[in-house]
Amino acid sequence: MYRMYDLIEKKKRKGVLDEEELRFIVNGFTDGSVPDYQMSAFLMAVYFNGLNEKETFTLTMLMRDSGDVMDLSAISGVKVDKHSTGGVGDKVTLVLAPMIASLGIPMTKMSGRGLGHTGGTIDKLEAFPGFQTSISEEEFIQNVNRYKIAVAGQTKNLAPADKKIYALRDATACVDEISLIASSIMSKKLASGADGICLDVKVGSGAFMKTIKDAQKLAETMVDIGKRANKQTVALLTNMDEPLGNCVGNILEVMEAVESLQGRGPKDLMEVVFALGTQMLMMAGAAQDAKEAEDKLKNTISDGSAYEKFCCFIEAQGGHRSDVEHIDSLQKVSFVQKVKSTNEGYLSHINAERIGHASVVLGGGRAKKEDDIDLSVGVRLLKKVADPVKIGEKIAVIYGNDEEKVRLAEKEILESCEFSDSCPEKIPMVLEIIK
Amino acid sequence: MYRMYDLIEKKKRKGVLDEEELRFIVNGFTDGSVPDYQMSAFLMAVYFNGLNEKETFTLTMLMRDSGDVMDLSAISGVKVDKHSTGGVGDKVTLVLAPMIASLGIPMTKMSGRGLGHTGGTIDKLEAFPGFQTSISEEEFIQNVNRYKIAVAGQTKNLAPADKKIYALRDATACVDEISLIASSIMSKKLASGADGICLDVKVGSGAFMKTIKDAQKLAETMVDIGKRANKQTVALLTNMDEPLGNCVGNILEVMEAVESLQGRGPKDLMEVVFALGTQMLMMAGAAQDAKEAEDKLKNTISDGSAYEKFCCFIEAQGGHRSDVEHIDSLQKVSFVQKVKSTNEGYLSHINAERIGHASVVLGGGRAKKEDDIDLSVGVRLLKKVADPVKIGEKIAVIYGNDEEKVRLAEKEILESCEFSDSCPEKIPMVLEIIK
Repeated sequence: MYRMYDLIEKKKRKGVLDEEELRFIVNGFTDGSVPDYQMSAFLMAVYFNGLNEKETFTLTMLMRDSGDVMDLSAISGVKVDKHSTGGVGDKVTLVLAPMIASLGIPMTKMSGRGLGHTGGTIDKLEAFPGFQTSISEEEFIQNVNRYKIAVAGQTKNLAPADKKIYALRDATACVDEISLIASSIMSKKLASGADGICLDVKVGSGAFMKTIKDAQKLAETMVDIGKRANKQTVALLTNMDEPLGNCVGNILEVMEAVESLQGRGPKDLMEVVFALGTQMLMMAGAAQDAKEAEDKLKNTISDGSAYEKFCCFIEAQGGHRSDVEHIDSLQKVSFVQKVKSTNEGYLSHINAERIGHASVVLGGGRAKKEDDIDLSVGVRLLKKVADPVKIGEKIAVIYGNDEEKVRLAEKEILESCEFSDSCPEKIPMVLEIIK
Repeated sequence: MYRMYDLIEKKKRKGVLDEEELRFIVNGFTDGSVPDYQMSAFLMAVYFNGLNEKETFTLTMLMRDSGDVMDLSAISGVKVDKHSTGGVGDKVTLVLAPMIASLGIPMTKMSGRGLGHTGGTIDKLEAFPGFQTSISEEEFIQNVNRYKIAVAGQTKNLAPADKKIYALRDATACVDEISLIASSIMSKKLASGADGICLDVKVGSGAFMKTIKDAQKLAETMVDIGKRANKQTVALLTNMDEPLGNCVGNILEVMEAVESLQGRGPKDLMEVVFALGTQMLMMAGAAQDAKEAEDKLKNTISDGSAYEKFCCFIEAQGGHRSDVEHIDSLQKVSFVQKVKSTNEGYLSHINAERIGHASVVLGGGRAKKEDDIDLSVGVRLLKKVADPVKIGEKIAVIYGNDEEKVRLAEKEILESCEFSDSCPEKIPMVLEIIK
């Protein structure tokens, strides 16, 4: 029998915990026999001394096994899950999932409601009247077998230990430790039952990972966990230094996703979509190399099959094709405010975090889980980094329902833009592939 | 208004907290508005990143002010408090207090019940039938004015914030951080209202501080706090590598104290007593230099005034002079077991912590606050470091009330002794004076 005191002390002294010791901690904290004040001291010791690869993997598996582990064997084909560490304007899943599905590869997406700049994928899809995300496991599997795509809110009790540990980390400033972040993400991914995992690790001012070094470490740690769990795993480091695409806000992002499926996607967004899709196709055995994969993906846009798949998917879960076709009509806002530049030169940086914050200010994101969000509000950028801008030229449009909030968002947007005399070099969208 | 989350994060990032921020933490934790899981995360961050001198002082004053601060102004003369960080066989207060008092300097001692190898001073004095430690503040002050000496259990609500924080540190492996130890000790000393503070910082195998470097750091930190609080403060680093004196156990230590007051004190114990006493006399203005102080102190032994003061003090608080004179009769044990050496050579080391543990095994110390202790049991060492020992020669006597426990203590004592062929050099008793 262990004493939590001794295990805190061991980690404090840079000791390495074995499986039984970690089991005592994770199970004890989950069942309440290890009190939260001991767990938070332990987590802070982990913040300073870290976990090695084996400890991180063991922690992940213990958290995975603390609840249900999905059985997707009733779905034929190689199931590849995609996960993003989160960024501003990240609507990649909405574009990529129907593209993959249209190629006959099953897309099973369990998604949550978001905390942060906008809602999660679930929130965004609920912009379509009638769309249901609380579908039964049976219906979920049936839909994937029939249409190759389904998105559901987390109905099962997935990784409850992670949920409880995360809540404590979130209250005690212990979120930003790589091994804890990696094990938290991977415990849920592994519990979701996919055969392969494709990770989009965002880097830059709008991401949780601000430096390439940290992002590499996180990506390597997650890939290592995936491999130890015998799952194909690949991670892409992608640029999140300015918002992805032009739109930030729930319905605005759905609009941009639909535009992208219709072949009018912003260059930076599509670059990330194709890069992730390429890895997913290769993982699923649907392409021999990157060239073949990318050709196939591009075809799903040019021949309309990805857009068609999206409409079919919205209908399959209770929405209406007409709402996809006339998506603009879903947005209900009282104020549409153009933001004019007070500066001139080349846009050298758009602070993505501040643009995200403008969306939160407008009411488009949650600060707490209980908060309601306004799906209609948001920001559409008209200029991106490296674009030349004149004083008085429109750089963004704000969609809002409160005049004061629109004013605050405008200030935030203007302050988030930096200018230079010469055209800045663009940062590539895909920085590294780690597998 | 502050958020505890931000203050944890600040300390985690090596930030320096100002007085208002520390006040929010200490007062919030004391009144319950800062939950223990946030406080323990904060304390672990302090373990790793420490507190600077100003933060440590501020924390100390906030803890001091969380409860009552004693007003000793009704006592005439300079009140000097003495505190030991604790060691095995430490009966210095019992010898020193009557010596100081017999020189007309007021000794006001607030003492607790001990956790560890033996009880605290309060427990030891309760070996005298009738002796009262729960005396009123009025009686306490009256006794000091009349006899220059009084010892009381902590009746007032002294530094409750420290008490609550210490309990949490004790449950979360956050005890061993210098600035937290220093502020904990000093908050109580400063709340006790003395004019000067004399600190005995023990170093070695039987002390909490195992290295001179750590002990120096602790001593310097406490002296710095004392000075910032405008109190004369001095710290002595004294050797605790073997037990102090020959006796370990409650009544045994009182016996040794009485023997010491009668001029038969062990050399190492008396060296520490004189060194601390010298500083206290100088602090009280009762001696111009160390030589004068030491002469005065030695006189209190040779002329019997210190012993007389001890008897008078025991009577003043309800005990009987006859019990001091026939102290052996107070000890009630069923087993007196001689320990014979199984080895030979010069005693090169006696692990003080293990001798202390033998006393706990016999029932002489507490593991938990609620535990009862047996005042009669303990160990009397017949040999000390540098003594030559033959196989079969008696090295210690065990006093116990349980045959099995006596057997375990014997094993512990034998294992705590190390031998060498040549006579080892003795470590000096006073290693450093820090003021």
